[in-house]
Amino acid sequence: MDKRPIGIFDSGIGGLTVAKEIFKHLPYEDVVYFGDTARVPYGSKSPETVRKFSANNVNFLITQKVKVVIIACNTASATSIAFLRKNYPNTPIIGVIKPAVELAMICSAKKKIGVIATESTILSLAYQKEIKNLVPSVSVYGQPCPLFVPLVEEGWLDKEETYMIAQKYLKPLKSKDIDTLILGCTHYPLLKTIIKKVMGKNVAIIDSAGVIAQECEKVLKEKALSNSKTRVGWHKFFVSDNPERFKKVGEKFLNTKIEKVEKIEIEKF
Amino acid sequence: MDKRPIGIFDSGIGGLTVAKEIFKHLPYEDVVYFGDTARVPYGSKSPETVRKFSANNVNFLITQKVKVVIIACNTASATSIAFLRKNYPNTPIIGVIKPAVELAMICSAKKKIGVIATESTILSLAYQKEIKNLVPSVSVYGQPCPLFVPLVEEGWLDKEETYMIAQKYLKPLKSKDIDTLILGCTHYPLLKTIIKKVMGKNVAIIDSAGVIAQECEKVLKEKALSNSKTRVGWHKFFVSDNPERFKKVGEKFLNTKIEKVEKIEIEKF
Repeated sequence: MDKRPIGIFDSGIGGLTVAKEIFKHLPYEDVVYFGDTARVPYGSKSPETVRKFSANNVNFLITQKVKVVIIACNTASATSIAFLRKNYPNTPIIGVIKPAVELAMICSAKKKIGVIATESTILSLAYQKEIKNLVPSVSVYGQPCPLFVPLVEEGWLDKEETYMIAQKYLKPLKSKDIDTLILGCTHYPLLKTIIKKVMGKNVAIIDSAGVIAQECEKVLKEKALSNSKTRVGWHKFFVSDNPERFKKVGEKFLNTKIEKVEKIEIEKF
Repeated sequence: MDKRPIGIFDSGIGGLTVAKEIFKHLPYEDVVYFGDTARVPYGSKSPETVRKFSANNVNFLITQKVKVVIIACNTASATSIAFLRKNYPNTPIIGVIKPAVELAMICSAKKKIGVIATESTILSLAYQKEIKNLVPSVSVYGQPCPLFVPLVEEGWLDKEETYMIAQKYLKPLKSKDIDTLILGCTHYPLLKTIIKKVMGKNVAIIDSAGVIAQECEKVLKEKALSNSKTRVGWHKFFVSDNPERFKKVGEKFLNTKIEKVEKIEIEKF
């Protein structure tokens, strides 16, 4: 039994889709969430810079005495997980990519899988490599969708323009006859309805938030790090900018009240 | 005569629309440009954070021994110019807002002016206040257009979706019967064709890049800071991330070759 909290970081607010699943699946765990809202987005930045930012974020979470770190950001997982595991050998680090890929492999009968994500994630080939490592014969098609994050941030979840843009981005994947599509960015689950409409009912949509919570539960059990089930856990939120905005938008993401959001100077960590 | 370079900073690449005009109007001046590509965009961040970033940027330019600083970013001008002028009293600091407002006042017969910009710039009321300071009776209508920057970054300058989004954003301004529209973001000149098409030929479009170059020339003359006209000036480019991408996209913005882009650690300044 280990009473220390779980640490989660994301480039901003999107990782709350992951936090929500953690809260649901592991209600007795305490959780510290950090969103790097001063330097968001990560998806258009270089791997080197994202690694530096990710190291700041883990350093901060370690000052909060976390027992495990969840990278709730696909870009950071794609570019930084190996670097972080090497530099923080005493803290288990869980990324979003592997659990999503494992679920996609189960869902895909045709073994034709699409991945949509930010430009950095697609260019890193992280999903493509992870899939090929598991089953080399699978066909994987990556497609960057740079406008999806700003559309979600703007709250245009069901506008006609969003649908037209989704049609444009997803057209190459439709022509490849995929049967499974991985949402490789934590913002994208909010566009799930539109993505489903464009892709049609024969394509399974993989949203990594749920599987990462299961992966976290597994890691805690394996390493005997679970908390005792004596009380419901607390949730603390930290950001590097705009705590008020995070609180307001975050409450919509989580569908529950956020007590307090604290601002920190992340570059000092 | 003063042989020191002119310093320009922007949150990223958009400020090159300003740099291009400076190169054209002041060909004998040396110029140091800094784009904060690791922390771009500024438009959705808090005034406090933008002020901190702007101070880093000016500190860096001062190490480059600049004689004047041009803030080629509307968000940074809107939120930080007073702060920067107070903290750097020995360096003249030129923002994009005042020169654009002065030109708009000349163009507007009806004295009904629209301003489109990022969310931060509009919320700061910087344009609105500057206009009201000059002529209190003018009507000013501000409209944030958060998707315009990502659309420009994606290169969707003449797509149907961009036109539809522009129609949606500009509709409230059209209904106000404005005769002059200020493009309050350095990315927006790249959407000028679409914006003109939506607004119609009776609305003057004010692009601040040209006027800021004139303002800079005026300041250099007034303060006897101009360079001697013995040779064509050099241009140096620095960024906080992705120098290769800046070089590639920057050459399109400037329509000329960029020799070298150097990466620096901006948070250390």
